[in-house]
Amino acid sequence: MNPIRLAQQMKFIAEVDKLKQVVRESWLVDASRKETDAEHSWHITVMALLLSEYANHDGIDIFKVMKMLLIHDVVEIDAGDTFIYDKDHAKDQNNREQKAANRLFGLLPADQKDEFKVLWEEFEAMNTPEAMFARAIDSIQPLLLAYLNGGCSWRIHSISKSQVIETKKHMGNGSSELWKYTQELLDDAVKKGILKS
Amino acid sequence: MNPIRLAQQMKFIAEVDKLKQVVRESWLVDASRKETDAEHSWHITVMALLLSEYANHDGIDIFKVMKMLLIHDVVEIDAGDTFIYDKDHAKDQNNREQKAANRLFGLLPADQKDEFKVLWEEFEAMNTPEAMFARAIDSIQPLLLAYLNGGCSWRIHSISKSQVIETKKHMGNGSSELWKYTQELLDDAVKKGILKS
Repeated sequence: MNPIRLAQQMKFIAEVDKLKQVVRESWLVDASRKETDAEHSWHITVMALLLSEYANHDGIDIFKVMKMLLIHDVVEIDAGDTFIYDKDHAKDQNNREQKAANRLFGLLPADQKDEFKVLWEEFEAMNTPEAMFARAIDSIQPLLLAYLNGGCSWRIHSISKSQVIETKKHMGNGSSELWKYTQELLDDAVKKGILKS
Repeated sequence: MNPIRLAQQMKFIAEVDKLKQVVRESWLVDASRKETDAEHSWHITVMALLLSEYANHDGIDIFKVMKMLLIHDVVEIDAGDTFIYDKDHAKDQNNREQKAANRLFGLLPADQKDEFKVLWEEFEAMNTPEAMFARAIDSIQPLLLAYLNGGCSWRIHSISKSQVIETKKHMGNGSSELWKYTQELLDDAVKKGILKS
């Protein structure tokens, strides 16, 4: 055991505890409170495991998808959560997140820093089958919560179905089946009066 | 796409949202509040990925370890969190958790119900290299939090080092190196006055 290496790993593990304090715009199913980034990251990783059969690409590496989903939000410890419909805050998002990735993954030993950085960059670039599916899962989860909790975040931020479609249509690249399911969910949400048409 | 199958999967995904409401006896690193089971599950899954090199057994299937860690606490949605030092509450823990596993994993399509149940049972039985390492990670995480937050849960529940050693010594079966590291941490915690000797 190399004590310096283990100390670096433990430093990162202690630092990412802060992901439990980054609060998202998504409300829990029972609408009692918003969820944290750590809770979201857990939920989507379980979802990827369960829903892998709906990935567009056969032979997708689901272990890699899960690794991406576990760590992709870590940058929000420094950069904060950017609500997907907040176009102003999104302007410097890339820059903020790049700096955060360098600082946070930089706490790790070089080989693990590189591994995590590459996973994060692949997720962000969204041009491999794994990244496309991971993004689809990351996108469907808050929609599912909103549908089940009576549209909390949609109503608070006055979001319309066309806005949701516009920001989420990339889901079809990762999973046509989940995108089709999502559109049915959104139609039903409009019918129920919890999402503007 | 089989709509009944997808509906079962989505039902499970909605139900396990409740893991975000199961509060543990572990406090965050900054001691501001206790963590939830969903947050803990995320944290330990990241830790397993980072610390796999310290597993006693070569060639361990770390993907399987991560799957176990992601889902092993789901039973606490029905059975509640059992504080490891609470011997009275632990008496009917197995029975409560077995019922919970049947109900919760039973929401899934049969093949996935079986997969998750087998993973959970393997974790509980702790007699494969993967389960032993998963349990070591599940055990070191709250110790690390307690060490970093000034011993919140140790002080509140008046826990001594010998109690910690007694309940956590199984860690050595999964990782001698992490168990050695843990013992050094505990010695230091006693020295700092945050854990009774």
